[in-house]
Order: sequence, then structure tokens, then C-alpha cells
Amino acid sequence: MDPEEFRRFGHQIVDWIADYRARAAQHPVMSRVEPGSVRAQLPASPPQTPEGFAAILDDLDRVVVPGLSHWQHPRFFGYFPSNGDLSSVLGDYLSTGLGVIGLSWQSSPALTEIEEVTTDWVRQMIGLSDAWSGVIQDTASTSTLVALLCARERASGYSLAHGGLQAEEKALVVYVSAHGHSSVGKAALLAGFGRDNVRTVAHDAVYAMRPDALDEAIRADFDAGRKPCAVVATTGTTGTTALDPVGAIAAVARRHGLWLHVDAALAGSAMILPECRHLWDGIEGADSLVFNPHKWLGVAFDCSLYYVRDPQHLVRVMSTNPSYLRSAVDEKVKNLRDWGIPLGRRFRALKLWCLIREQGVSGLQARLRRDIGNARWLEAQVRATPPWRVLAPVPLQTVCVRHEPPGLEGDALDRHTLAWAERINRSGAAYLTPATLDGRWMVRVSIGALPTERADVEALWAVMRREAGA
Amino acid sequence: MDPEEFRRFGHQIVDWIADYRARAAQHPVMSRVEPGSVRAQLPASPPQTPEGFAAILDDLDRVVVPGLSHWQHPRFFGYFPSNGDLSSVLGDYLSTGLGVIGLSWQSSPALTEIEEVTTDWVRQMIGLSDAWSGVIQDTASTSTLVALLCARERASGYSLAHGGLQAEEKALVVYVSAHGHSSVGKAALLAGFGRDNVRTVAHDAVYAMRPDALDEAIRADFDAGRKPCAVVATTGTTGTTALDPVGAIAAVARRHGLWLHVDAALAGSAMILPECRHLWDGIEGADSLVFNPHKWLGVAFDCSLYYVRDPQHLVRVMSTNPSYLRSAVDEKVKNLRDWGIPLGRRFRALKLWCLIREQGVSGLQARLRRDIGNARWLEAQVRATPPWRVLAPVPLQTVCVRHEPPGLEGDALDRHTLAWAERINRSGAAYLTPATLDGRWMVRVSIGALPTERADVEALWAVMRREAGA
Repeated sequence: MDPEEFRRFGHQIVDWIADYRARAAQHPVMSRVEPGSVRAQLPASPPQTPEGFAAILDDLDRVVVPGLSHWQHPRFFGYFPSNGDLSSVLGDYLSTGLGVIGLSWQSSPALTEIEEVTTDWVRQMIGLSDAWSGVIQDTASTSTLVALLCARERASGYSLAHGGLQAEEKALVVYVSAHGHSSVGKAALLAGFGRDNVRTVAHDAVYAMRPDALDEAIRADFDAGRKPCAVVATTGTTGTTALDPVGAIAAVARRHGLWLHVDAALAGSAMILPECRHLWDGIEGADSLVFNPHKWLGVAFDCSLYYVRDPQHLVRVMSTNPSYLRSAVDEKVKNLRDWGIPLGRRFRALKLWCLIREQGVSGLQARLRRDIGNARWLEAQVRATPPWRVLAPVPLQTVCVRHEPPGLEGDALDRHTLAWAERINRSGAAYLTPATLDGRWMVRVSIGALPTERADVEALWAVMRREAGA
Repeated sequence: MDPEEFRRFGHQIVDWIADYRARAAQHPVMSRVEPGSVRAQLPASPPQTPEGFAAILDDLDRVVVPGLSHWQHPRFFGYFPSNGDLSSVLGDYLSTGLGVIGLSWQSSPALTEIEEVTTDWVRQMIGLSDAWSGVIQDTASTSTLVALLCARERASGYSLAHGGLQAEEKALVVYVSAHGHSSVGKAALLAGFGRDNVRTVAHDAVYAMRPDALDEAIRADFDAGRKPCAVVATTGTTGTTALDPVGAIAAVARRHGLWLHVDAALAGSAMILPECRHLWDGIEGADSLVFNPHKWLGVAFDCSLYYVRDPQHLVRVMSTNPSYLRSAVDEKVKNLRDWGIPLGRRFRALKLWCLIREQGVSGLQARLRRDIGNARWLEAQVRATPPWRVLAPVPLQTVCVRHEPPGLEGDALDRHTLAWAERINRSGAAYLTPATLDGRWMVRVSIGALPTERADVEALWAVMRREAGA
């Protein structure tokens, strides 16, 4: 496609996206298509000859949009907010259009240096000391895998340079909370620890990891001749936004020489609010930290920030230096290929840069405070309206609820919960995610999509009461 | 940013990118900035109040562009082509603007199903049988890590579900070529094999892995009580686009029960040309395969395709299934989170879909044939012009050359090679990547940027002769 065609169709796409965002509320939030129905509308084989871009535009409204669940919808309360603020979208448009790749500093210096600057801006915004260095990864799953690989290598004396994990005599052990994210267990398994060496640490009544139980589990493993290696604490679990006590966990980790990785994928955004930072008190005692600005903060997916206190260790684990990537300035620059798994690198920093500059810290703070206020409001309504129940503390923007009509218990209550949530999702009026808590289904109301205002939360609450029959 | 502001600035950005691409040739190809100079132009702290998007646009020409090496430039001959055809750029604009996330099929059905369809289109385009299933990853580094994790788990009887790699009694061994990509060794180390268990297999005179040497190395490891696990063959090495003999390697791998992963990150694009498919004869004998359409083919970075013959095995290694991601249709759909490391997923298939439809298979074939023709032309010029030498076969689009004036040898020749390449790169007239081959520096001329025509290659050849002093 030549630049003039790009100009013509590019303007059409900008208008189409502007309209899509402006009218997002007109769509049913959750897609209603049946499995296979999108696929069935597409040719089974690729076109031999060019179709022209107009044909693609025609398919957007016909094929693509009905197959979407609309994450940028004002009544999207599912999973977690994955906000792509339109300023950040434009930053990504620049990145994709420029088409430069960061294999090394030299392969596009601005790509590396704007990433250095913006990750340091975010460090300041979330109140971390300047002992931390940041880098952009794709997702928290990857960041946590990187963290556990670094922990593995520290504990094993850089086994990768010798016999590998398989040569270790003592089993390395990882400690997680039952309420930690599924990606933590996955990362531990991919890093080679094995399920037998992943300990689920007991939690307290509000779903936070118990430091005393952690300490006990570590001691038991030492006594059994194993080698405790890493603990992953969560600030803001996916289920209930529970807050593991980072400071107390850090003390246990330090005492026993473990790596502490903190998963603040969702809740990291809240740390731009000084009044929230007590939620991760003790964070300076961690070794690594992941926070996803592509969630609540509003950077277009994907932009996961991985912060470490010892970047030299990270580089030692991740570095490669083939001849075709060497340059005369390597001693003076950061080569971010050595800060994670992929070699190739998008200019992701542009979307972060654009968001922060266009919104300002104060603009981002105001929006997050709006969302926390909306969650508090819903929490108060639910608490005031039996037989509705709030099932967990609401420190941030997620409200975990159940409607518990007298006499409904056990599996019958589960069926009721799933049924009313499903009725709402099917209706298209809002989108909610059910999840299990203490073995029973509940519904997570995750507030904080960009266009979600108080009126949307009020409307949700009305539809919840209607569909639950109360 | 509201949709109307997005519309206004979006049009400006589309025009800016159209102009950037149309006038790419006006920039020096390699950035001339000094380390730290981009960073020095940016504030050390984030803005408290909104700056407005116009301020960002002002910085593009002033701060960003001088800090770029221009991969979309007609005289970019460095590294490898990383083409972002503008049709594909528009596909990515749609993806970013829509802002939907593929956590599961249900979280946006079209995201999953268009990925299924387009990866199958590409499978057909590159001549693979329908025994292969594909999925989009970010980079070949990640795809190869996934492959080696899958190999590890097959060879260890799913050790991740038990004691992990660290519980294995026999050391698992991986076999790579000295000319394989740096990401292969990195993946093996991250997967926990350890450097002691990564064998570099001898190559022949044209830098291809020797199957007899592979067989011998495997037998030696068996004899020593180790457990050969996986071999990574390369179709189109980074250094010289050397071609490991896939069929013969597959026979060895099959005989000894090893996993065969084929890295065709660059050369996979060429397989859309039937006349090139002999280059990976025997590919059906592999277990997994990575091919990066974000290189030569023209999909905007990042879009790495990972194909496997046994997706059930992949899912068994990679799957997680937390309650909040379950849905009633899980038995009927693909949940691509279980096909790789990250949970979150961009709608990457749109950029692949747009490229193939807008260009048609025939359009893509014509462009790749142009580039191969240009490489043949340059090869012929170099061969006809002593003391220039072509150092390796030119099966595709990379020409490895050295200018060898009589009497210059060893380190002096290296200095000469690096000096003329550096003079070209500093001049801004073209961008070339030096690399080592058989312990000496040479220069890779990697042809195939989208706007590179014969005239650009002719101009490059003129500047090479001028700067090398011959």
C-alpha cells in the first residue's frame, strides 16, 4: 500500500475508530456470536489477488464488530479494566507507522531512551525510590516468568552457565498465595521448578498471604533438605484485589535469602495516588515488581512494566551478544534485549509517553479516584441491601458480590449466581465475570473502564437487582 | 482524550506517517545521535498537568525522528527486513483502536477466530500440510522458548506436573548449530538445560548443520548416560541465510526420538514462493516451526507464527484455567492463552489479515521475487569485481561480502572491513550490518525493505566501492 492510499484509508479508519469509541455504548457488551460463526464467514483460503482495502472496511461492521466483547464499553465490568486511552492509541499509531525495531540501542536510539525516560517517570509516579530500574514487557505473565528465572539463577549460582536447573542437587522451591494469579504458577512450572516444588501459602480471612505461614513453609523445606528460592506476593489479587502484606513478607524473604517478586499488575495503577501507597507498604524490600499500565492506567495493550533493583543480575541472566548486534557504543548504552526474553522490540514507550503527557499525572489521578469512588458507592449499596452481600474488602475498584436469597445454599446458590450473571451478560446491558471464592461462585464487579461514570454503575446495580430477582 | 480530539489528532498522525513513509529516503538511514542525547532533551519527571497532544506532535520531528534508524528506508540493508506494509499498519490501527483483549475465546470471539483463519491461510501459503496448527507469538525468541519448553516436557514425561526439570536424573541435551540464532541458545538456557547440555553441532563449508555430526553427538550423549531431547535446525541463518538440511536432520531426530524445532524466522517468508520450498525439504518431519511474517513478508512488528503438529501437547504444557476465565463454551473453542506464555492477547491477526487481503498472495510473491532478483544482481556484481568476494551462497536476499585488497589479512582486514561499513553507515547513504564469519568480520547486505528497488541496490553498490576505496 502506498502512502497516498494509506492517507486515504487511514483517515477512514481514524473516523471509524472515533465513531466506534463514541458509540461504544450502543453495542451489547458481550459478543453474542456462537463458536465458529466468525470463522464461517471468512474464506478458508487466502486471496490470490489483491482485494483492495475497501473490502476489508466492509467486513468490519459485518464480521468483526459482532464478534467482539467491547472492553472500551462504559458498562464493561468484566475481568479487569484494560483501558486504551485514545491519547495512548495515537502513541501506538506512531509506533506502528514508524516501524522501527529496537534490537539494540543503535538500531533506534530514541526507542531505548524514551523507554528509559518513561519507565522512570512511572517509577516516580508510583512512589518507588530511585533504586529501581524499569523496562517494558508484554504482559505480567512474561514479567513474572522473567522474575522467577532470575530468582532461579540467583539461588542456583547461575546454573544456566553450567549444568542448568537439572544439575541442582537440592530442589528449589517457590512460594505463592492461593489467590495469586494463574500466571504465577504457570511461570513456576515453565521455569522448571515443578508442581511438587510450588507451595501454596495459607491466607487469612481477607485472602492475603500469611507471613507466619510463609515462614513456617520455608523452614519446613529447609528442614527437608530443599532450597527455598522465591516468593511471589500480590498487591491486588485478580479475584478480590486482596493485598498480601508486602513488608512482612519481605522481612521473611530477607531472613531466609529468598527472592521477592511482587505482582501488582492491576493495583500498580493505584500507586499514582499517594493515599493508596500504604497498600504495598514495604515494597522497597522486594527484588522485582510487575505493574501493567495497560490495565487501569490506560496505556493501550500491551505495556507491562517490570522493575528490578539489580539490573545487572537481570542482564546477566538474559543477555546475548551475537556479532551482528554489537556496536562501538555498547558500553555507554542500555541494550534492552538483555532485559527480557524477546530480542525484537516495538517502540512501546511512545504510547506510555503520549498518555502521561496528554493526561498529566493529575488527570490520571482524577480518573482513578473517580473509579474508586464508584466502587465505594456500589459497595455501600450492596451492603445496605440484603440478601446481597459484599464478600471481600474493597480497597480499590473491584467489588465481589453475591445475592443470597434465604434458603439457597451450596450448589443451588452457585446455580443462582451463575444464572443471574449470565442473564446480564446475555442481555448485553453489562458484562460481569463470575469467579470462585472459598469454593463457591461469586461475581466480580470490576469498575474502571475509561468511559464508566457513576450513572453506568447505577444502571448496573439496577440491572443486577432485576436479574437476580431482588 | 475524547473521540473528537482523537479524530482531529488522528488525522494529523495519519498524514504525518504518510509523509514520513513517502519521504523516508530523505533521512540518513542510521541515526547519528550520541548516547544519552535523546534522553537529555526530555524532562526528568512526568508532567503534573496535561500538556495537550499538540506538544507531543511538536516533539516528533525535533526529538524522535533524529533518534531513529529508519527501518522503512529504501536503503536500509541492515539486520533483516522488518517491513510494516501500510495495509498491515492500518490493521494494527484497528486493533489498537478497538482495544479488545483475548484472554479467552469469549473475551472477544473474533480475535481468536480471525487468528485461527489467518494462521491457517499462512500455513497454506507456505506449503505446509494441514497437519499443522498455528498461533501468533510476539517474536521468534519467544516461539523458540515455547518449543524448547515443549520438548523438555515431552522428554521428561511432563516433569512440570511433578518434580520439575530439577528432578530429572539424566541430563536433557539440546543440539543447535553454531550458526543458529542467539535466541536459540538463550531459550535453552532459560528453559533450564544449562550451557553444559547445549551442543554446538559442526557445520559444513556453507554453514549448514551436518546431520552426520548431529547423529554422532546424540550417540555420544546417549553413551554417556544423558538424554538427548531436542534439535533446533535453521532455515535461513541470520549470518548468511544458510540452510540446515531439514529432511536429513528430521531423520536423525526421529531415529533418536528428539524434538525437531525449525527456526525459519526470516526465510519462512520465501516459502510463499513454490520455487523456494526445496530450501526446507523435509519440513513435515519437524515438530514445531517458527516463521516471522513481521520480517520480510511485511506484517507490522510484532507477529511471529508458531506452528506445531501436536497442539494438544502445547496446550498441556501451557494451559491454565482459573475460574474467572472459564466459560460454558470452553469445550467448543480454542483458548489461545494456552498456546503460549502470555495470558493477555492483542488482536494481532488483524494486521496479518489486512496485509494478505490487500496485497493478495500474488502481490506478496511479486515483491519477494523482486528482492531475490536484486540480491542475485548484487551477488553477480560482487563476484565480477575482485578483490570483492561473496562469502556464502545467496539462496535468498542476504549477500555476505568482503573487500579484500591484496596484502590485507587478519586483523588489518578486519579493520578495513569495519571501517568501510562504518563510513557508509555514518554517511547516512545506506545501512549495513557487519558480522563475524569464520572468525573474521564481513558485511551482510540484507535486501528486502519494502521501498527498496533495483536503483537503491545499484546506489548501494556504488557507495560500497567508493567507501572501500575500490
